[in-house]
Amino acid sequence: MSPNVKMNAKPLSDPAYEVFCSIVGAAHVLVIDDDKIRYECDGRANRGSAAAVVRPESTAQVSSLLASGADYGITFVPQSGNTGLVGSGIANESGDHVVLSLDRLNGVMNFDPANRSVRVSAGVRLSELNAAAAVYGLTFPIDLGADPAIGGMIATNTGGARFLRYGDVRRNVMAVEVVLADGHGSVVNLGRDLWKDNSFLDLKNLFVGSSGSLGVVTAATLALQPMNTTRTTAMLAFHNTHQIAPLLLELEKHFGALLSAFEGISASAMNAALDHIPRLRRPFADTPLYTVLVELAGGAALNADWLEEQLAHILSDSIADGTITDVVTDRRNDLWAIRHALPEGLRAKGSVIACDISLPRGQVFEFRDQMIAAIGSRWPDLELCDFGHIGDGGLHFNLVSQKEPPAEVKSFIFTQTVKAGGSFSAEHGIGPNNINAYHQHTDFNGLQLAGRVQRTVAPQRIGRVDFGPRSGSNNFVSVQC
Amino acid sequence: MSPNVKMNAKPLSDPAYEVFCSIVGAAHVLVIDDDKIRYECDGRANRGSAAAVVRPESTAQVSSLLASGADYGITFVPQSGNTGLVGSGIANESGDHVVLSLDRLNGVMNFDPANRSVRVSAGVRLSELNAAAAVYGLTFPIDLGADPAIGGMIATNTGGARFLRYGDVRRNVMAVEVVLADGHGSVVNLGRDLWKDNSFLDLKNLFVGSSGSLGVVTAATLALQPMNTTRTTAMLAFHNTHQIAPLLLELEKHFGALLSAFEGISASAMNAALDHIPRLRRPFADTPLYTVLVELAGGAALNADWLEEQLAHILSDSIADGTITDVVTDRRNDLWAIRHALPEGLRAKGSVIACDISLPRGQVFEFRDQMIAAIGSRWPDLELCDFGHIGDGGLHFNLVSQKEPPAEVKSFIFTQTVKAGGSFSAEHGIGPNNINAYHQHTDFNGLQLAGRVQRTVAPQRIGRVDFGPRSGSNNFVSVQC
Repeated sequence: MSPNVKMNAKPLSDPAYEVFCSIVGAAHVLVIDDDKIRYECDGRANRGSAAAVVRPESTAQVSSLLASGADYGITFVPQSGNTGLVGSGIANESGDHVVLSLDRLNGVMNFDPANRSVRVSAGVRLSELNAAAAVYGLTFPIDLGADPAIGGMIATNTGGARFLRYGDVRRNVMAVEVVLADGHGSVVNLGRDLWKDNSFLDLKNLFVGSSGSLGVVTAATLALQPMNTTRTTAMLAFHNTHQIAPLLLELEKHFGALLSAFEGISASAMNAALDHIPRLRRPFADTPLYTVLVELAGGAALNADWLEEQLAHILSDSIADGTITDVVTDRRNDLWAIRHALPEGLRAKGSVIACDISLPRGQVFEFRDQMIAAIGSRWPDLELCDFGHIGDGGLHFNLVSQKEPPAEVKSFIFTQTVKAGGSFSAEHGIGPNNINAYHQHTDFNGLQLAGRVQRTVAPQRIGRVDFGPRSGSNNFVSVQC
Repeated sequence: MSPNVKMNAKPLSDPAYEVFCSIVGAAHVLVIDDDKIRYECDGRANRGSAAAVVRPESTAQVSSLLASGADYGITFVPQSGNTGLVGSGIANESGDHVVLSLDRLNGVMNFDPANRSVRVSAGVRLSELNAAAAVYGLTFPIDLGADPAIGGMIATNTGGARFLRYGDVRRNVMAVEVVLADGHGSVVNLGRDLWKDNSFLDLKNLFVGSSGSLGVVTAATLALQPMNTTRTTAMLAFHNTHQIAPLLLELEKHFGALLSAFEGISASAMNAALDHIPRLRRPFADTPLYTVLVELAGGAALNADWLEEQLAHILSDSIADGTITDVVTDRRNDLWAIRHALPEGLRAKGSVIACDISLPRGQVFEFRDQMIAAIGSRWPDLELCDFGHIGDGGLHFNLVSQKEPPAEVKSFIFTQTVKAGGSFSAEHGIGPNNINAYHQHTDFNGLQLAGRVQRTVAPQRIGRVDFGPRSGSNNFVSVQC
């Protein structure tokens, strides 16, 4: 338990407890500390204190909970796989919140292989979904280190290591079923099981990336992709980073959609993983200043030899002129294993200041150079161990500290990122951990509009994020539906 | 002029006229019939009568117009390239509307090649954008027969013939600048010039596919794709349609993202084009019952011989067993020319009842069979001349009539489509021409939510579509911002 968190859960009122028990069964209304604890903290040091945890198993139960919660003035915090970075699925420290866990809402997984789609309950885990989809030669192509549940992936709009090829969750959601925080628990179905549909105002995407603060996504129809059965992976060693952005364009010109990943790894991040995780194989005798992991992948008509030959051909000039100092190729998963182990390596090395930022693609390395200088002069004890999805401008600009890191570092990085035209939240959404940045870097017209839309869609407070402008008072109005 | 339309434009009040002239200049406030006419009708028989046409050249002018329009109780109808199917960019017959044309708002087209993006004014035409993007080896990959402007493409969320590979406009918009219909003409920027950004509630997508009824999109940042420099195209002849859906899956398994189009053409649609358009080359001696146009395309590392060989290999079983009766390949644009000429062929043949529907992919041909029987028994004089983007479930279910077609046909088709799990508007949005279907086929909770969101975002009436439930009174509230 973090020493900073006061565990001061306030008990539910008897009437609220009774009603919740009547909806989900007493076994699924958790009020004892030992039962609640795994819903009150996540794997990332976020921690809160919940009055109770309720575990519905159906959309109807979610609806009844939200309606009765409105009667008792309860704020629900929807929680899904509980793997988030920004704390939006965790109760706050007040002890007032009721965590609405979706972990039992996992009963539906209906595939339509001809449509390449699946209808799925919000509590189904990504790994379960993809294991079942593989039977049809299909995949939900959001490639993450963690194993979140679908509801949380939608609420966060996760990206991942193959964004360059497949985009984010938003791009791959056909439809959502949502229980509205409107005082009645109204259920709306937004979208259909269709690839192409313009028969409605796009309200679906309001809930994608809404951090659970606009309603509860209880089910979704997801678009699936054919699995890539042919692939090759290479790590390219660079002694400076200036030629990486042009190389990306060159690979895109030659390979188009066959280029399925273009990931960057700093020497310090690579070493953190290799030094602390014995199962990894060292790709280079000496870790290069910067490494790019390239993946080419496609269908069964391709063959891996041809992909490797073509890649070698495209890289030959860069190797000849010394831009690329070494290349290692791999048809197994040894290189990806290193990439996916980087977060674990960093945690083993020290305290991590995790900044999930993005920039226009052509500015990633110039920005990185400027920030190395700026941080080095301000906080010489911090070590930059960055890596990221540089093919799409995403950068996990992570710093490792051997002691309690200074509180203002993150704010400094976020401000510099936004000044450079970037985003302080690339793929982990908005939550308590970056809400200050949200208010600082969103213009007033945007805040006003977001607040008005939120109060319209969810007049009953739900979740952790108030998207409107800050004021002394509660921005939420009372429920009038 | 359609004899059904009464031309009863009501003149602007003097004060409104004066204010509009002071904002955009008198030369750009059109009130004389001869000046207005080209903004009052489009290429698709939609026709209305506008009190005036105003032609701003900047976002600031759009903002001033909307703010002053609120003072004078004027409803603006935003109009962009004026190529829409559903009539949402055209004034109604009341004569009260003021068309807000974006045709002069075309001053910005700033490319960021390294980011593969472009900032562009709403009035820029798709053809202009792609001519300029080609210099960088890039393209905005929405492939349409018409040449709309960007603002209208966003308001419609157009799809097109390469949706299967690149998706719709929504998938390719990074950011929009919008002037809000909030009584003040507030300008909001939603999104950044970034591939990955989760730092805000997704309000951007509310305006994509909003038919110009939520605000005026004045500029956007669009994601661009590398041009495919290697391609092959083939037409496959079928004597029945049952094996087409399995073939699509087979091609996807083998070619993945190299499969860039999978388009279907009925014999009657093909013949309409070949019979009426002399420039087209006949692909088959006898037009097959159904033809599928397949395109494989990718980057410079591929070569067209290899694509053709692989395609022949994958198709060989289907040819051997008689599923596919003939194949014609093409590396030029002869086959695409036929595909793009189909609408022109239909118009030359008779009166077209154009239904832009979509279905789950696996159900397209079963639905089509059922509808051929149902329409044949009800309206034997109508000839089905359908074609469509069957790789994504899109179907231009068009009927041709030699006399005035019965009014109830469209409604029947839309109802059967929705019953089969499909959409009555696949890629042309919502407008006066399909608003009845919208109200009929959207459930009440959805209508309620859409209406609330629309009134929140656009309390000042704008555009042609009221997304809320129908009632006797105007659903819009007075401006209170």
